[in-house]
Formats: sequence, structure tokens, C-alpha cells
Amino acid sequence: MPTRPFLIAHCRQLLTLRGSRRPRRRRQLAALGLIRDGAVLMQGDRIVAVGTTRAVERHPLARRANKFTARDLIVLPGFVDSHTHLLFPASRADEYEQRIAGLGYEQIARRGGGILSTVRKLRRADNQSLQQQARRWLGEFATHGTTTLEAKSGYGLSLGSELKMLEILRRLHREGPLELVATFLGAHVVPPEYKRKPDAYLDLLIRRMIPAVAARGLAEFCDVFCDRGAFMLTQARLVLTAARVCGMELRLHAEQLARTGGARLAVQLHATSVDHLERINRADIRALAASDTICTLLPGAVFHLGKSSYAPARALIEAGAAVALATDFNPGTSPTVSMPMILSLACTQMRMTPAEAIAAATINGAHALRRADLLGSLEAGKQADLCAFELSDYREIPYYFGVNLCRLTIKRGQVIHDASKRFQI
Amino acid sequence: MPTRPFLIAHCRQLLTLRGSRRPRRRRQLAALGLIRDGAVLMQGDRIVAVGTTRAVERHPLARRANKFTARDLIVLPGFVDSHTHLLFPASRADEYEQRIAGLGYEQIARRGGGILSTVRKLRRADNQSLQQQARRWLGEFATHGTTTLEAKSGYGLSLGSELKMLEILRRLHREGPLELVATFLGAHVVPPEYKRKPDAYLDLLIRRMIPAVAARGLAEFCDVFCDRGAFMLTQARLVLTAARVCGMELRLHAEQLARTGGARLAVQLHATSVDHLERINRADIRALAASDTICTLLPGAVFHLGKSSYAPARALIEAGAAVALATDFNPGTSPTVSMPMILSLACTQMRMTPAEAIAAATINGAHALRRADLLGSLEAGKQADLCAFELSDYREIPYYFGVNLCRLTIKRGQVIHDASKRFQI
Repeated sequence: MPTRPFLIAHCRQLLTLRGSRRPRRRRQLAALGLIRDGAVLMQGDRIVAVGTTRAVERHPLARRANKFTARDLIVLPGFVDSHTHLLFPASRADEYEQRIAGLGYEQIARRGGGILSTVRKLRRADNQSLQQQARRWLGEFATHGTTTLEAKSGYGLSLGSELKMLEILRRLHREGPLELVATFLGAHVVPPEYKRKPDAYLDLLIRRMIPAVAARGLAEFCDVFCDRGAFMLTQARLVLTAARVCGMELRLHAEQLARTGGARLAVQLHATSVDHLERINRADIRALAASDTICTLLPGAVFHLGKSSYAPARALIEAGAAVALATDFNPGTSPTVSMPMILSLACTQMRMTPAEAIAAATINGAHALRRADLLGSLEAGKQADLCAFELSDYREIPYYFGVNLCRLTIKRGQVIHDASKRFQI
Repeated sequence: MPTRPFLIAHCRQLLTLRGSRRPRRRRQLAALGLIRDGAVLMQGDRIVAVGTTRAVERHPLARRANKFTARDLIVLPGFVDSHTHLLFPASRADEYEQRIAGLGYEQIARRGGGILSTVRKLRRADNQSLQQQARRWLGEFATHGTTTLEAKSGYGLSLGSELKMLEILRRLHREGPLELVATFLGAHVVPPEYKRKPDAYLDLLIRRMIPAVAARGLAEFCDVFCDRGAFMLTQARLVLTAARVCGMELRLHAEQLARTGGARLAVQLHATSVDHLERINRADIRALAASDTICTLLPGAVFHLGKSSYAPARALIEAGAAVALATDFNPGTSPTVSMPMILSLACTQMRMTPAEAIAAATINGAHALRRADLLGSLEAGKQADLCAFELSDYREIPYYFGVNLCRLTIKRGQVIHDASKRFQI
């Protein structure tokens, strides 16, 4: 028997983000499809109708729906956070203090801190405690309005521990309610045991790890941290090419610490997304704008590292690139699960408009995960994933910064966060 | 009959901030008085004992106390937010968008936006809706760990509407649970009807408004926005001197947009606090360090305006100044109620250590409100005001930025925020 339909009516503002079969660029980016006094009708895990309350209430299913009103709420698609390192064993608040005392990110890494300190702990950690950590953060993602997130491996850096990470991610995805999209990031940094023979690690990645991950269907994407202190351009090309041969789609960390040419490589290889881009130049911007690769900007890492070298969001948008925003949730450079905070950073520090930032965090995030057929906008037939903020206007989502005003999150038609306990069926 | 004692035991880390009869300076600033496996015993609105769980459990009142454990919590004094403009009629998210499009704060003000747009709306607003707005934000302050806040008038700028603001603040304070400390800020900007005769407004302030506020006991402090586009140094001196004569203590907005000499004026007049200080020079720093005036830093406004000119927190601390941190909650330049967010900004952008930032937001905030006898630290005899975060270490409070991980807030011994519903008596 089908579940009873679920109607949220009289939304103060409903941001549909409708009509986005292709990634949003330029002015389209800011077209929110805003409906005042809007309504969303859902049944099971899908959206049945979206429009003004008046129009939606005429739908045949509306009469027998559980009906809720949302006169004080701004309703929009659940955030699609397309770049996270969800699974890690512990915070790195100690390094945070060292950085405040003046050490650089790369200096800390050379002292055995940084990513490798997380790798050491993760290899020793048991599945149970890792999962429990991640579950806690998934709960926080949901209370901040995120309904889907990408999650990377990359703190194992051995065949066994990378598979362990990806298997935990699969378990968390199946367990729900949040939807996880897994990315294999064996090429995060060279692990300590291969420090003197990085080519042997590359060989292991290409000949054993990527095929093993692909054979088990554990990751849809393969990613490489292509930067100074991580992998060089030629190495990144080898890894990504191998992954493509094994049927994986591609993403790339590029141009964060230094300009290495990673953005161009992503374009050449038709990567789905290229992430960071703090150091790109004019020619890179033109190449990205002409490509079908999404530019995923991660202002949280710039902020947390105390830098001011934000990616050139305005230039990218004006050149016609498709821009997405993500948290980059990770213990070293961006310990935040909050997409609203990322929107504040995007608007305040990168001069994206509130509308552009919202589209970048929803529909373009969905495109960055190849899920725009189901996610990222509120349209009939799409998955019923939404969040709602107790505010007067959508621009207030980034405006009130550093606070969580998300009152309601719905994933596949199920209420998974309800701060005011008003949406109980 | 006295209420039953209330014991929170086995705190993962208890930050007492004990021993702070005078504002904290230099190294003292970072002395958190940290106790592992700590406990706080409260009765009525006061703290009875603080120490290790073992020691506190030996207290005669402990046996008959309602006992709760907090093994997963970092417990600290409730934040004392010593600079807010709590009471305003509406957000200014429209101006936020204009600023992103490239207009400056002062340009927006010249177009009739800025503070004066809030003044126009506030004068028309009825008490009921103003109070309701403020109550909503007070609830949010509490969920982010704040237990006491200063709140300014300054959006009325006529005798009647300034009194209306201060009366609402008094009502909200009496209503509780949060404690408000009122400041008269009639000298915020010159109101439109006095645009061509600012001296007449100064006269009104000095001869009628200040005496009226003082006679009604509506504000403990008098403040002036001494800056380019607001009041000049000589005007500020006249207003503050008049307020002192009427028995009010002094605070000052100084050196935010331009260096006008306000910091020195605050020192000369023995103001309790001087706030902002983004534009001070070396000599100002020396003068502030040698004074008994608290330097209240407001990094939220710098962040929200998209600037990078943070106040020189490190230089102030190293010179020996007493530094406090506050949200500056207001609709134009700092729409945040979150002290944890302010701590993140202080650490990440101003290079304060997490310990310094916590002390600046608690005990030095209490000094900035002349309430350090009762607030700002967890010590026997003080008011039972605390907050607790679900974290492994206190450094994670600023580290996990832009999220609210405050799980428990207690004001005068009463649980006013309990995210996990564990502390029900």
C-alpha cells in the first residue's frame, strides 16, 4: 500500500531551482524559480507536484495528504555537498593551534602532522568507532540542511585500509537516511612506507587498488590530490586514466597550494568536477568555462587556514563556468559540515550573490555528482529531498552567518530533522 | 524551601576560568583553569562547588543533588556577549546583496540605507513585534551558549523611541531567562531630522535624553559611535562626559572605519570598554595596554563586510591589553548571535589561541560589563551560568566552525537549552 501523500503548503518562499537539465552557468545560475506561497506535494520518496499552494491543492492526491503549513519557512532543495572527507578518526585541533602559532599547512605536514597523522590513526582505528564518528557528523549534516554528500576514501592509503573506508561508506549509505556518493582517493598523498619509492605506490594504485575498488563497485568516482606536496600532474594523469579504463568517473583536487596545471588536465580528461582552484589564471578560467567540467569551490578551507586567497568565483561565473560549492569537510583544512556557512563565505568573501550560492550548493552540486536527474531541484518526479529555514527571505540564509537556522530536513520523503517538532505525521 | 541541588559530574573537560578578580591580560588570558573529570555543584541560582568529580562529590550537598554525567561534554562558563544591538525590526539582507554587488558600507548609508533604514522601520514598529523578534534571537543566543548579553538602544534616535527601546530591553531582561545589560546609544548616528543641525541633536542628547534615561534607571552604560560618518571626537567627549555626570558608566565604538582618536578618549575617560579598534596604531596599543579599559574586538563585522582589516588582537595581547570578544549582533554589519563563530574568527583570522578566545568571551566579557563578581567563571558563590559542547577538547569549539555544537546551556541554575534532552530534572 502506498504511503499517504505529504503536502507542505503556504511556504513563505519556495525555491524550486526548476529547469536545470544542464549545469547552471552565468545568469541561469541565479534563477531560483522562486514561488511565493508555494507548496510541495510528495508521495513515497518522490515529489508529485510543485507550484503555488492554490495550484498544488488542486492535485488529486492533495486531498488525502498529510498537510503542513510553512508560512514562516523558506523551502529549498536539500543541499548536495559534492566534496567531503567524511570518514576520519579524530579532529586535528592540536595542529589548528600550531597553525595559529604561525606554522604553515605544509610545514605541519613535513613534521608528520597533516594528512599523514590522520592516516596513522585511521589505520589503527576499528570500524565501529569510525562508523560512529561518521554517523555523528551525518546527523549534523542533516540538521544543517544537507541531504546528499560525496565522501572520499584517502586516509587509508593501503589496499586493505582503503577498501575498509569504502566499505564503511557503503554501509553508512545503505543505513541512511543520508545518501552518500563514494569517491576513491587512494592518490591523496604518498603513504610513509612509500616515501622513498613513490613510483611503486603509483604502481600499486594503478595495478591493484583501482581495479579492486572498481571490481567491488565501491566507488563511482576516482579523485587525485594533484598539488605541491601531493601528486604531480603526470602522476595524476596516469591514475585518472587507469580509473577511467576501469569505468570510474573522475574528479580532481587542483590548484589549491600551487598552480600545477591540474585544472587543464581535468578539462582534457572530461572530469566531472575539478575542485579548489584557488591558484588558477585567466587562461585556466577560459578553459574551464569552455568545458563541461564543474568547478567546485571550497571556501571553507581558505577560511580555516586563515588565508585570503579565495578562488576567483566572480571571474569563473562571468566567463561562463559552471560553479558548485561544497564544504570540503575534513579534519585538517575545513572542519565544517555547514553548507549555510559555506554560502556565507561564498557571498561575503567571494562575492557570489545569495541566489548564485544557493544554486551552486543544490542543482550544480547535483550535477557535480551526476545526480541532477534526481537531485538538486524541486520538480515533479525528482526525489523528495528538501530543507527549510525559518527566515523572511532566502538571502538571509547566507546573511545570518555562523548559526544554524535550518528547521526542517526531508530526505526521500522522510522527515529527518524537525527542530520545531511541527512536522510529525 | 530551597531547590534541590544540581550536580553535573564527570565532565570531560571543565573550564573554570577561576581566579579572575581583574581583567585577564597576556599569559593569564590563556589560563583556563582546566579540570579533567570535573564537576559543578549548583543550588538555586548559584554555584556551590567546583572541582574534580571526586572532590565535589564529597560536598555535603552533593548526596541529595540531582546528578547528571557529562563524559562527552566540555563545560565552561556561559558566554558573556558584551556588545550587541539586539533590538531591530528587520534584517538588511537587501543591503547585503548590494554590498556583494560592490557598494561600500558608507555608500549604502549615503543612499538612505544603513543604520538610518533600521531607524525608520524601528520608529514605525510596534512594541509587540519588536519584542517578538528579540525573543526569537534571545532563544538563538541561548542555544549557542550565551547566558548574558549587553544590548544597546540607538535605532530610535528620538527621546520617545529611545525610551521605547530601553523599556523593551528592560522587559525582556525581567522576563528572562537571559540576562540583559542595557546601554544607551542615542549617539549612534545623527537622525535625519537633525541632518542640517547636528549640534541641536547633541544638545537634545545631553540636556534631555541622557538625563531622562538616567532618571528612569534604564541604562547602566552610555555609548557613542565615534567614527567617520557618525560622531566626531569632540562630540563624543561631550556626550560621554554628560553621561558620566548622570552616573552612567561608559563604552565607546571607536576606530572602526577611520582612526579618529576614540581609543585614546576612552582611556582618558576611563571607559569600561572600547569596541572595534580595527584602525588603531602602535601608540594606541600602548595606551590601551596601560589603561583599565577593556578592548572589545568584534571580528564578525569585519568578516560580514568582506574586509580583512581585523583588529590587531595579537599586538594588543602582547602589549598587555585586556581583550574581550563579542558578536556585535546587528542587522547591518554583523548578523550573528554565535559566540562560537566569533571564537572561530578570532582564532582563524586574528590568531588568538583557542584558550585566549574563550577567556575573552567569558571572564573578560564579564569584566567588560562590570559583572565579573558574578559572571564569567565557574567558582563557588558565582551565578550558575554555564554552557557545554559535545566535543573531545575545548580547542574544538573554534575549530569546528560555522556549526552549533552547544548541547546544554544553564542560566541561574535553570536548564534553558538541552539539545539531547538529557538534563531534565
